[in-house]
Amino acid sequence: MQTSSQLDALRARIHELKDLGGIIGLLNWDQETYLPDKAGPARAAQLSTLQGLYHQRLVAPEVGEWLELAEREAAAADDRSMLRVFRHERDRAVKVPERLVRALAEAQSDGLAGWREARAARRFAPFQPALERLLALRREQADAIGHGGERYDALLDHYEPGMTTARLLPVLERLRASLVPLVERLDGTLDGADPFAGQTFDPEVQWRFTVELLGLLGFDLQAGRQDRSIHPFTGGTHPTDVRLTTRIDAANPCPALFGTLHECGHGLYEQGFLPEHHRTPLAAAPSMGLHESQSRLWENLIGRSLPFWRFLYPRLQAAFPAALGRVPLESFHRAINRVRRSPIRVEADEVTYNLHIVLRTTLELRLLRGDLAVADLPEAWNAAMVATLGIRPRDDVEGVLQDIHWAWGELGYFPTYSLGNLYAASLLHAAERALPALWSDVERGQLGTLREWLRREVHQQGFRTSAEDRVRTITGQGLTDADFLEYLRAKYRALTGRVLTTSS
Amino acid sequence: MQTSSQLDALRARIHELKDLGGIIGLLNWDQETYLPDKAGPARAAQLSTLQGLYHQRLVAPEVGEWLELAEREAAAADDRSMLRVFRHERDRAVKVPERLVRALAEAQSDGLAGWREARAARRFAPFQPALERLLALRREQADAIGHGGERYDALLDHYEPGMTTARLLPVLERLRASLVPLVERLDGTLDGADPFAGQTFDPEVQWRFTVELLGLLGFDLQAGRQDRSIHPFTGGTHPTDVRLTTRIDAANPCPALFGTLHECGHGLYEQGFLPEHHRTPLAAAPSMGLHESQSRLWENLIGRSLPFWRFLYPRLQAAFPAALGRVPLESFHRAINRVRRSPIRVEADEVTYNLHIVLRTTLELRLLRGDLAVADLPEAWNAAMVATLGIRPRDDVEGVLQDIHWAWGELGYFPTYSLGNLYAASLLHAAERALPALWSDVERGQLGTLREWLRREVHQQGFRTSAEDRVRTITGQGLTDADFLEYLRAKYRALTGRVLTTSS
Repeated sequence: MQTSSQLDALRARIHELKDLGGIIGLLNWDQETYLPDKAGPARAAQLSTLQGLYHQRLVAPEVGEWLELAEREAAAADDRSMLRVFRHERDRAVKVPERLVRALAEAQSDGLAGWREARAARRFAPFQPALERLLALRREQADAIGHGGERYDALLDHYEPGMTTARLLPVLERLRASLVPLVERLDGTLDGADPFAGQTFDPEVQWRFTVELLGLLGFDLQAGRQDRSIHPFTGGTHPTDVRLTTRIDAANPCPALFGTLHECGHGLYEQGFLPEHHRTPLAAAPSMGLHESQSRLWENLIGRSLPFWRFLYPRLQAAFPAALGRVPLESFHRAINRVRRSPIRVEADEVTYNLHIVLRTTLELRLLRGDLAVADLPEAWNAAMVATLGIRPRDDVEGVLQDIHWAWGELGYFPTYSLGNLYAASLLHAAERALPALWSDVERGQLGTLREWLRREVHQQGFRTSAEDRVRTITGQGLTDADFLEYLRAKYRALTGRVLTTSS
Repeated sequence: MQTSSQLDALRARIHELKDLGGIIGLLNWDQETYLPDKAGPARAAQLSTLQGLYHQRLVAPEVGEWLELAEREAAAADDRSMLRVFRHERDRAVKVPERLVRALAEAQSDGLAGWREARAARRFAPFQPALERLLALRREQADAIGHGGERYDALLDHYEPGMTTARLLPVLERLRASLVPLVERLDGTLDGADPFAGQTFDPEVQWRFTVELLGLLGFDLQAGRQDRSIHPFTGGTHPTDVRLTTRIDAANPCPALFGTLHECGHGLYEQGFLPEHHRTPLAAAPSMGLHESQSRLWENLIGRSLPFWRFLYPRLQAAFPAALGRVPLESFHRAINRVRRSPIRVEADEVTYNLHIVLRTTLELRLLRGDLAVADLPEAWNAAMVATLGIRPRDDVEGVLQDIHWAWGELGYFPTYSLGNLYAASLLHAAERALPALWSDVERGQLGTLREWLRREVHQQGFRTSAEDRVRTITGQGLTDADFLEYLRAKYRALTGRVLTTSS
């Protein structure tokens, strides 16, 4: 009876924490969508208060006692998985004082404000003090959590549990070495008249098209919604309340189309957790890399494929007859796959994209190691852009200020995008083997074939195992760049008619 | 030093509680505006969790110790007021077990769901079990808080601190006795062609008009926002984040116009608290009656006045030239002030409105006293409508199911609307004496004259004193129906050309 009641107490606390996490999700979503301009400081205080309370309720001593008991008693596989995930989170949290949690929450709000001010001024300086503060707090947090001499490991583990700097860097270096010559070969080969140049695309029509796109992919709009924001993201409070945002550019439909496809990939994952896992840590992706695999898969591997647009392009033409009525499918398909050295990550093609990630990972690692001062970051960024992509940003907005991540103090997040690209290609490869009708179904707009396979193989598994273990179970191998590089070579061979080899 | 650190601890807890209250406000606002359909149960759990935590943090023993110490030490007038308000809230909360707080939060969610189901079915029965549960919990709550034999007192005190049933009932009875013969005299006297009949009013144009109206009244849209909802309300998280909703009917502009004016009155109050009171219980109205005085003042005493529409009507005509271009100001003004026995409270004119309140107050008092079973409520409602207003609702949606309040288990709220009407008339009377240019300024669209007076006399005072003490300071007398009845008589004398006396 004692055991049972203490297990019940632990479960109740776990539900409570999941509820609080969902509420923090609502505060963040609201901050990026509907919060009035002057309410920034009030929202910062609310977030700091709630994150502090979350921390208190997580690290409370009684929770440790319940947990130890539960670990001895739990028999069901899902219970054991849940306790493992919960212990991982709690063990990290116990080492971090609540003071630091609240200081980080406040520094994040200041970081966001400083970053916005810097972007408005188009120069890095106004952001520098806030980033210095965030960096100092992240170092303190990393030291509190503990590491084997590499602070980055402690932060990375939050986004990609089990990943280490020592394992990550060679993966990124191999990618870089393979991609640089590929960019060299492809840059300019798909150039031609830009089908979007000089056209306008009614924002309301774009909006309706993206909502139809969500329906086509199977996103449940009764268990989620889409809104607009400057920086598209996926948030929400619960698997029945998943919130996507998109960004609409009247001069170009691509930000809305591919933004919606990307966030929808995240959203399908969040909606796909098993109901019996709701309100527990199992209703979560085991890593951000696996989460990004879902967004990148729908955005790129499906969303920039020819079969997908064979189905969808006539509808896009019908939505924008003046702009696209006389643009052939093949021209459109080439335009959305053009390889080009460009300064902005979120607008980068699939080949150059990972080079943007290598650059950011290298820089944030140097910041954290103390090899680079925050004051020197803008110039280091520009030098790395020249070295990696051969271009120099016109100003800091086009350079070091382009992403929101560092404004939130998110160090260790960026590499998960590349891991997501690699996982996405491996998963697609496995799906093609498992689903012979995959591409013919895509061509008929039957996306449920792939979605339900992903639901079964990935989404419904939640956090039962690590990301890499899950991928290994599905594909037969762990993290690899082979599928991704093969996917790129095949795709661009078809698009350019050239045989492409790389150094990898 | 000890004292100071304990005062600091108390102040930190008070800030935390105010933050949590603001977050609960966001959860509620979101539930009525943007929450996806399927997320109802998840939101119910989130609200229950957060309300439970709020309660825990409020009643924690250390807070009682800090409070006693602070009460002995505090010298500044605002500190003493703050501690008095905080003690009042805490003393009530300490008596209510957290189990009951959580049960009430869940019963409210069930109540809302049952009420919605019943409305869809257009009959009361599906709502009955949830209302019975809510009533049982409210009785338990009233008994826990304590009362002198009248449970309603314990609930009333939450909305109108200091008010008692014994004081309230004679006020309402006098109102009823005055208004019934007035309705008799006025019903039908302002009839004529309905200027809105058969017209359509573009919802987008209505929306833009209401946003301009907010600007005209001085609502700060950088410290608040307006959205749409089925049941207009004012919520938000902080005085810099005040959220109004309005409802748009394409066949009639009145719901949007007067809904926005009403909620804007609430919103100006919320935005008007002093910055030094933010994050404390002083940044609040001392009663819902005083809050309603602000919404009813702008909606009716200003918003249905001839001077106001002398300024605004040409703009409304310009917004809807086809529908209103040939309708004279006087016809419009008569139409928005027509006295008519009608079944729906929120659509009622200023004369019949309070009769709807008397009816609801009488019924909820009987429910709470045990003199009326929930099962018999619909028939009791209909009988009371016949007795009071001479009309019988066509069905329960037009009758007992029309308001959301009982679905939330809000018993004791309704009378604050009538108190608000009485306070509004007394405040306007005082404003007319203090501001000789008031009406000529209104006629020129200069609403700042009245708004800034209200800001100074009401809004910025926050919760420093009770509602009635504040009104007495401003007007020279406490709660009275004299100003309200005189206002109605003068208004309808002007509109109908008849001298009106009532039995009061």
